[in-house]
Amino acid sequence: MQRVKLEIAYDGTNYHGWQLQPHAVTIEGVINEKLSQLCQEDIRVIGASRTDAGVHAYGNVAVFDTESKIPPERFAMALNALLPTAIRVQRSFAVPADFHPRHCDSIKTYEYHILNRRIAIPTRRMYAYHFHWNLDLEAMREAAGYLVGKHDFVCFCSSKTQVKDTTRTIYSLTIEERGDELVLRVQGNGFLYNMVRIITGTLLQVGTKHFTPAYVKELLTCKDRSKGGACAPAHGLFLVEIVYPDLEAQSPMQSL
Amino acid sequence: MQRVKLEIAYDGTNYHGWQLQPHAVTIEGVINEKLSQLCQEDIRVIGASRTDAGVHAYGNVAVFDTESKIPPERFAMALNALLPTAIRVQRSFAVPADFHPRHCDSIKTYEYHILNRRIAIPTRRMYAYHFHWNLDLEAMREAAGYLVGKHDFVCFCSSKTQVKDTTRTIYSLTIEERGDELVLRVQGNGFLYNMVRIITGTLLQVGTKHFTPAYVKELLTCKDRSKGGACAPAHGLFLVEIVYPDLEAQSPMQSL
Repeated sequence: MQRVKLEIAYDGTNYHGWQLQPHAVTIEGVINEKLSQLCQEDIRVIGASRTDAGVHAYGNVAVFDTESKIPPERFAMALNALLPTAIRVQRSFAVPADFHPRHCDSIKTYEYHILNRRIAIPTRRMYAYHFHWNLDLEAMREAAGYLVGKHDFVCFCSSKTQVKDTTRTIYSLTIEERGDELVLRVQGNGFLYNMVRIITGTLLQVGTKHFTPAYVKELLTCKDRSKGGACAPAHGLFLVEIVYPDLEAQSPMQSL
Repeated sequence: MQRVKLEIAYDGTNYHGWQLQPHAVTIEGVINEKLSQLCQEDIRVIGASRTDAGVHAYGNVAVFDTESKIPPERFAMALNALLPTAIRVQRSFAVPADFHPRHCDSIKTYEYHILNRRIAIPTRRMYAYHFHWNLDLEAMREAAGYLVGKHDFVCFCSSKTQVKDTTRTIYSLTIEERGDELVLRVQGNGFLYNMVRIITGTLLQVGTKHFTPAYVKELLTCKDRSKGGACAPAHGLFLVEIVYPDLEAQSPMQSL
């Protein structure tokens, strides 16, 4: 028996998200199917992040246990030969039997891409949120600064969340201009349901002067979820990587 | 009667290229249909570049004549309301009645995107050619240098071409590294059928040491088309812009 870790990139456009569903095509469902075919066993992966429909990934993480004799680092290529081109395993390797992608400490990095120009660009329509209003970047960066650190992010998560402790730590939150695209990049020890999309939506409301940066600071202490900002659409969001500091074999995936 | 110029961006993935075809969906066909609907006339545009199936554009050009009273600069927004999101008119304005997008002098800019890494990235699969071999960039740049200038590009065009004069001028040809993507950017006064894709394919064969840079120089004088390089796939190619120096209203579209 071996436990194998997969680092998986996907285009979320045509999937109903990560998580297995009985009557919809999901990333997890497709990976289970192809792994089971490859190993000739009934395989069920454990995923690190249950990304929503339309959200993309460069490096989501999943693990599975198998009796297969396939060398762990060969699973990436073997699976890619069976998977649709919208899903590509970037790397596979053996991990300790007690490694769990959701219960071990990790640093997650997300990017949210905003195309900030008057008219949309068709080739970006599935990978960036087209937002045509002018944005006050300085105000957005001031507001972003308040969110860094350990806070109760209850005003930055979906009311559908089932977790009780809504405290999380954001290590960094930057907004980079790349031509007419803004890339919001956030690193943290974990994110609540829709948290990155609500942070993005809120910062966009700062950019259009609907909210002040000070209001965003207040949201961190007000606890009234209804005061929070909008949720930006799924298709601008990318799960970039998940790093497990305790996992020795790990070398961080190259940033894209 | 007015003649209106359109600057059009599109995602070529799901179209059978630019040019009108009786039994296939093409960019030109869709634009004719929506313009005719908007103007309540039978409109046929004249396009500048008949891009192949799968090729993308930020700024292809088309003109049409209409009796419509719609102000010329309003066509962009009015058309976008009718067009699928895979096609977006970036700008529209009036041009002289004798302006012809293929017969007037122009400077065309194309980009070819190559994703040079071991494993493909799903969200790039329709917009960059995944090429996993190591590339000798220095050799590619040396070879690219030979192609700049006025040459007979007969060894760099498809045998299907119908033109007799295969002399063209390349003003610049650069290869830029953007992370793990290579962007080949070429400007010229006109391009033969498949010319940018064959230049790219040939330079990739230099990058893998299948050809020497000196061989590429020889191709410019050998006239034997069968000695030429491979044609890179359509989906990595973008028509970036077409500038008409004689057209006064023109300000070059922002580079993407």
